[in-house]
Amino acid sequence: MDVFEAIFNRRSIRKFTDQEVSREYVLQVLDAGRWAPSGLNNQPWRFLVLTSRDGRKNALMDCTKYSHIVRAAKVLIVVFLDTGSKYNHVKDCQGIGACIQNMLLAAHGIGLGAVWLGEIINQESMVHQVLGTDQDKLELMAVVAMGHPDQKGSSQRRELKELILEEF
Amino acid sequence: MDVFEAIFNRRSIRKFTDQEVSREYVLQVLDAGRWAPSGLNNQPWRFLVLTSRDGRKNALMDCTKYSHIVRAAKVLIVVFLDTGSKYNHVKDCQGIGACIQNMLLAAHGIGLGAVWLGEIINQESMVHQVLGTDQDKLELMAVVAMGHPDQKGSSQRRELKELILEEF
Repeated sequence: MDVFEAIFNRRSIRKFTDQEVSREYVLQVLDAGRWAPSGLNNQPWRFLVLTSRDGRKNALMDCTKYSHIVRAAKVLIVVFLDTGSKYNHVKDCQGIGACIQNMLLAAHGIGLGAVWLGEIINQESMVHQVLGTDQDKLELMAVVAMGHPDQKGSSQRRELKELILEEF
Repeated sequence: MDVFEAIFNRRSIRKFTDQEVSREYVLQVLDAGRWAPSGLNNQPWRFLVLTSRDGRKNALMDCTKYSHIVRAAKVLIVVFLDTGSKYNHVKDCQGIGACIQNMLLAAHGIGLGAVWLGEIINQESMVHQVLGTDQDKLELMAVVAMGHPDQKGSSQRRELKELILEEF
């Protein structure tokens, strides 16, 4: 798929078919995330992959108001910031955003659907408890919910002229 | 260009030819940024484009230790967070990161070279002074320096096994 087609046509997908996502696809998506840029190339992203076979996947339903998406998704990629790799919180968060965007574009490019769940980080302590992860070493950044799409997705964007501060 | 080719082969480009970047190319890059996802779809990114014709472009050289890149680039895209659109700083910074990544991939897809300058945000007040922008309304997030590439660029990434917390 062309890179511009991926960028312009990707949408958040919140409904998924019953088809499982192959391990190979998950690895391709993670590999895309890995190639994001980061400040000083510190690559602070860490991933925990939860498939349908992992009981913690459904346990995460209690940690978000989007439990129906967590249930429907076939794979969750829990994205953390490795606190040991930190150097600047704003730039680290931006780098993680770049990493997540690579994964969303890759998922779309493969033909999968995905959605970036951000609300769940408001319940970070509960997430760590459910996952058995160490809150001192890992800062919860997002969960990417993924599966084979069962909807087209739609959303709009502001016009460019609203985003450009001055004509050039 | 294929989306995976763009993701895997994009590199930071810090050397540029003398060829100007067409306005059409800049608009394509901004348009890619516009289509990033953001929390609650708040689209908090704002752009100030500085071309070689804009005296403020060279004035930005005093605001960063990467002045040689600012000088060599034919276009700078100054990326701000619109404070009026804010809702959560971590998620807003992540969204801005997704937006920047879209722009870097788009630039690469067009055949341009670009680099994400993050260090400049350490001199935010000076940047606002040089640009005449309002620090209360706009938080400096990054500068994307762009031009026709005069180097191949190279950088490496950690192996996936170092980034995955558990086998799945």
